[in-house]
Amino acid sequence: MDTAFDFDRYDHIRPILWTGQALELLDQRKLPFAVEHVACHESDAVAQAIRELTVRGAPAIGIAAAWGVVLAGRAVEAADGAGALQQLEPALQRLNAARPTAVNLAWALARMRRVLATAGADWKQLLEREAQAIADEDLAANRRMGALGAALVAPGSGVLTHCNTGSLATAGFGTALGVIRAGMAEGRIARVYAGETRPWLQGARLTVWELQQDGIDATLIADSAAAHLMKTGAVQWVVVGADRICANGDTANKIGTYQLAIAARHHGVKFMVAAPSSTVDLDTADGEAIEIEQRDPGELYGVGGVRTVAEGIAAWNPVFDVTPATLIDAIVTEKGVVERPDTAKMRALFGG
Amino acid sequence: MDTAFDFDRYDHIRPILWTGQALELLDQRKLPFAVEHVACHESDAVAQAIRELTVRGAPAIGIAAAWGVVLAGRAVEAADGAGALQQLEPALQRLNAARPTAVNLAWALARMRRVLATAGADWKQLLEREAQAIADEDLAANRRMGALGAALVAPGSGVLTHCNTGSLATAGFGTALGVIRAGMAEGRIARVYAGETRPWLQGARLTVWELQQDGIDATLIADSAAAHLMKTGAVQWVVVGADRICANGDTANKIGTYQLAIAARHHGVKFMVAAPSSTVDLDTADGEAIEIEQRDPGELYGVGGVRTVAEGIAAWNPVFDVTPATLIDAIVTEKGVVERPDTAKMRALFGG
Repeated sequence: MDTAFDFDRYDHIRPILWTGQALELLDQRKLPFAVEHVACHESDAVAQAIRELTVRGAPAIGIAAAWGVVLAGRAVEAADGAGALQQLEPALQRLNAARPTAVNLAWALARMRRVLATAGADWKQLLEREAQAIADEDLAANRRMGALGAALVAPGSGVLTHCNTGSLATAGFGTALGVIRAGMAEGRIARVYAGETRPWLQGARLTVWELQQDGIDATLIADSAAAHLMKTGAVQWVVVGADRICANGDTANKIGTYQLAIAARHHGVKFMVAAPSSTVDLDTADGEAIEIEQRDPGELYGVGGVRTVAEGIAAWNPVFDVTPATLIDAIVTEKGVVERPDTAKMRALFGG
Repeated sequence: MDTAFDFDRYDHIRPILWTGQALELLDQRKLPFAVEHVACHESDAVAQAIRELTVRGAPAIGIAAAWGVVLAGRAVEAADGAGALQQLEPALQRLNAARPTAVNLAWALARMRRVLATAGADWKQLLEREAQAIADEDLAANRRMGALGAALVAPGSGVLTHCNTGSLATAGFGTALGVIRAGMAEGRIARVYAGETRPWLQGARLTVWELQQDGIDATLIADSAAAHLMKTGAVQWVVVGADRICANGDTANKIGTYQLAIAARHHGVKFMVAAPSSTVDLDTADGEAIEIEQRDPGELYGVGGVRTVAEGIAAWNPVFDVTPATLIDAIVTEKGVVERPDTAKMRALFGG
């Protein structure tokens, strides 16, 4: 697929743009009706953008954080990387604390630290080069995953996806949406359904819009209509991204993913996780050890500034959940595919 | 429980008020922020109110339709019920067509027809008496179901409910919410969770508000957080209402119910359907034969007049689904409880 695929046709959107002076982030809180960018001139503005979901999606927040380190470096004078690292430590920690669940954030910061640890006087240039490499590698990984994931799907299949895992969530092309883009281009995928993904409505606001930009028609459903959809036979695969994949294959992803995996297994629908290997966290043995981010209950009190819930109501708003490896048919990464994942298969592909 | 239970404390709301001249419906489209009533002076206004969800909930639309027949009768002159029935037929058919899935609507209209078929010159008084009886019996049935359903729940349990099945959906007290009211009063239920119930947000707008009026704290969750909630051990029962229960126990209810039933079984959480026997449709063998209402895709395009989805997007909006009897632990009606329902047990309790 890599040679024949018309990437330009199927991949327009870039959520993260480094201008050489500032980091311009496509403001995902305002999509799909306003396409606006937020310019970050310092590291703490990047941390804030990650915290407030101006930029979101596990790979994208890793890339944004890497550029945040570059911005932090602008304000530092040091003779070498090790000296800079010492001064940059507070900024690195604030970036790392912006969101807890996706491992890509810590992974990207660890890469930036490693560069600093050995860099000489040219540490600023090396930092910038590393951030660009993280972004470039992510795009290449997504294109590779698209080919590997699509190859698992039988021609004429329908797929259901959740949240947004597209160009908006990555350096470009997307993880699960990359698989869907590739599968559509190859004629393997005939129907695409997207869950609206309460509370933040990433599916409703972002995914169907992003696919529309590529001329791919996706049908929006309420998250709770997924099992009924599966029962109709319209979908053969659920394809989702990941925020952290444990050593045994347990996968943290957007709230609702676990429920989809249970429903998929009940109906004999296959379940695929597509994510770059930077999402694999061999230091976390299984899903029990993953910190699940709890966000403001206010996210459930309304939509777009319109309050729908009475005052004084409590809400529980975990924004991720863990899908056990036993419910996953395939984990697709740029390094290869792990079918029916377990610790031995994961270690065989990812080392450790 | 029936004698000790303080119904006045736990049950304030009446969605359907017959004034003797008009039918006043609590406008459920405007809750929880505006408590307004719509006065219906003719039968077609009632049909419209049912269609537009001014009044909703399977038992409530049956009761409203019965009063709609009374209103239709106001405009008719006939010597006896049979003559009136002939003239009322078009109005009855328009009421019956207002919504397709809940059987209570057809059931209530059938009761009104039966009264007319044998009534003499006093058919108008008999129609009014029958409509009042339908409402009164519904309230009594709900109080009985509350006791029977709560008795199944072990003390200290947590429950999750879906949609709105309370006083707002019935003549009062509620079906699944009646079980929850009774269970709270008896100390059997310690924690109540409510799914927001996209797309119409009956849980977010109505259920948590209705329980708040009674001093019952319910915690709101995104529909897709239910499986994650079950995994934490916080809930021991899912308790829902029904729009139609087939001869074999298959149950149509709000979209998302089926997904909850699958997740409940996966976690060993029990699943209860609470509904009056008017919801049981022995003429429908199983769930395959139930017509699932498809509503306007526009219900998925936003909330409260705020559009969240780009123009030109397709949506699939079935508003009910079918939970197979095999996933149901108990069907609770005012006539008794059917555990692990099947056709033989259903016929034993409901005849036919």
